[in-house]
Amino acid sequence: MVKLAIDLMGSDLGSKELLKGVREYLDKNGDVKVVVFGSQEELIDLKGHARVEIVNTTDIVPMEITPLSFLRLKDSSMQQAIKRCALDEDVKGVVSSGSTGGFVTGCQLILKNIKGVIRAGLTAPFPTIDSEKKTVVLDIGASNYNTGEELVCFARLGSLYSKYLFGNPNPSVYLLSNGTEKGKGLKETVEADEILSNENFSGYKGRCEAREVLDGKHDVIVTTGYAGNILLKSIEGTAKMMGASLKNVFKKNFLTKLAYLMVRKGLGRMSQNMDYKKLGGAILLGVNKVAVKSHGNSDAYAFFNALDVAYRMVQSGLIPAIKKEFENEG
Amino acid sequence: MVKLAIDLMGSDLGSKELLKGVREYLDKNGDVKVVVFGSQEELIDLKGHARVEIVNTTDIVPMEITPLSFLRLKDSSMQQAIKRCALDEDVKGVVSSGSTGGFVTGCQLILKNIKGVIRAGLTAPFPTIDSEKKTVVLDIGASNYNTGEELVCFARLGSLYSKYLFGNPNPSVYLLSNGTEKGKGLKETVEADEILSNENFSGYKGRCEAREVLDGKHDVIVTTGYAGNILLKSIEGTAKMMGASLKNVFKKNFLTKLAYLMVRKGLGRMSQNMDYKKLGGAILLGVNKVAVKSHGNSDAYAFFNALDVAYRMVQSGLIPAIKKEFENEG
Repeated sequence: MVKLAIDLMGSDLGSKELLKGVREYLDKNGDVKVVVFGSQEELIDLKGHARVEIVNTTDIVPMEITPLSFLRLKDSSMQQAIKRCALDEDVKGVVSSGSTGGFVTGCQLILKNIKGVIRAGLTAPFPTIDSEKKTVVLDIGASNYNTGEELVCFARLGSLYSKYLFGNPNPSVYLLSNGTEKGKGLKETVEADEILSNENFSGYKGRCEAREVLDGKHDVIVTTGYAGNILLKSIEGTAKMMGASLKNVFKKNFLTKLAYLMVRKGLGRMSQNMDYKKLGGAILLGVNKVAVKSHGNSDAYAFFNALDVAYRMVQSGLIPAIKKEFENEG
Repeated sequence: MVKLAIDLMGSDLGSKELLKGVREYLDKNGDVKVVVFGSQEELIDLKGHARVEIVNTTDIVPMEITPLSFLRLKDSSMQQAIKRCALDEDVKGVVSSGSTGGFVTGCQLILKNIKGVIRAGLTAPFPTIDSEKKTVVLDIGASNYNTGEELVCFARLGSLYSKYLFGNPNPSVYLLSNGTEKGKGLKETVEADEILSNENFSGYKGRCEAREVLDGKHDVIVTTGYAGNILLKSIEGTAKMMGASLKNVFKKNFLTKLAYLMVRKGLGRMSQNMDYKKLGGAILLGVNKVAVKSHGNSDAYAFFNALDVAYRMVQSGLIPAIKKEFENEG
């Protein structure tokens, strides 16, 4: 049985949506138990469920928060959920749909980095042209700046993630850059390239460009958090823009509407492949337990998937594997 | 009559494609004269044309080149074209499809920045969901790093570009960031935001995120060169990936192929709107003359458009306007 701590407050669409996701996930997966944190009245719906423990909290972490203010909000659902995950050996992971900044701060201060991990990275599997294949990108926004050594740490973490979650025995690893030639990129890219090359890092293939990220030929792409965040959001924006343009094409007249009916299935599969909600959110990789940050505007479906990501991460044995790898390295 | 200097060497598809573009452009636009630079044998096709001057050069700038090596290649087509543009008052602009690094270096060292411009920015108009509207983004890769003051300089340059090329009387200006709240972004973003806010910069609206770039609601978006390059290329990559997925949807069977025929026109318009070749390449904004860098893999159509961009920029009066604005500021 996998036990998860869940913060149910502070998301854009409110706790009702998240609750629905939790309930559906409990129905689907009998192997999961949850401790939910939030305002008691809002969580009443889950009361009495055999696999649910409800913890009443009074505060909610706002979307924008400094580390100091986060720590002061001692009775916030987010801080309590992370604390429970840190202190209760039985709780294997924490899931939240609240403030990303707050969650990253909280996990780093309370769950703490695994020994030897110099920087935890926010990670997401990106959909690619090959619907069978996800590309692991990190960091996508836990930090703004990263050193070359931190990028090397991300390469290690991402490689293990790809191995344990996607079953790649020897994942290919790339550094995101503004060109593929030696010397290209930020100075930290150049530093990281030197370290990875010198130590013959397993699977390291050199630099890749932003236009290659979705081609399905890369297992792990490592980037500083700021550039990773720009990358993630520009992909999201472009997909959205093209989806809207496509809708306009099909809405034009009777014939184009008929055409839509003929390709509806294929378009559905395509948009499902690109659907970020299906991916369940980002993972803070490098802290001592499983930490999943679902999108701020998660609906029940997205939150259901976030819980499933957390469950699968616990089952995969990734965290013990990271601990072992970094212990040996340190 | 507008006179342009054109580097015809060093592009991926070879000078034949570029030559074809030049010839077609001369046919279409009787108001343009060109000085072409390259290997005489390859340019023979243009010999005798009343509005063409051919300058034979022996060297070609390779795709990757350091500033020092660039300067040493004195008889390269690129250096000669830029020099002619700098020294010949009649030549109003220079166009190249060769090395971006070489072109940026050459323009900065030889054409030189306009007085008061602390950093020239590589600029491209991005297509948006609104086919009537282009968003000006800079810098997209002339630099890796920029200071807050350089970002402010880009805001000035981009705003004038939007005014003179797209006729926006008071363009809206945004800083690209990883969040829209005060304090978000790189430290140079924060610096630039402070300067622009304090001086009540005309049209300045604050930060925007990468997912908004294509929504057609932004006239000018300012970014450091590295992040701008990631942004540009991830948009390109995503559009390409979605285009390929869409093709697969329509190829599936007889009915989907029939559906394709019914929406072909609309899809064509959509892909034309997204076509980077139509945009003609990037402009190095802030140097003393018009400088257009066509994509390295330009075909005749792309190069034709690059020439047209250079022509329209000369006609727009943008360069004198930048000179005037920065003179007054300095």
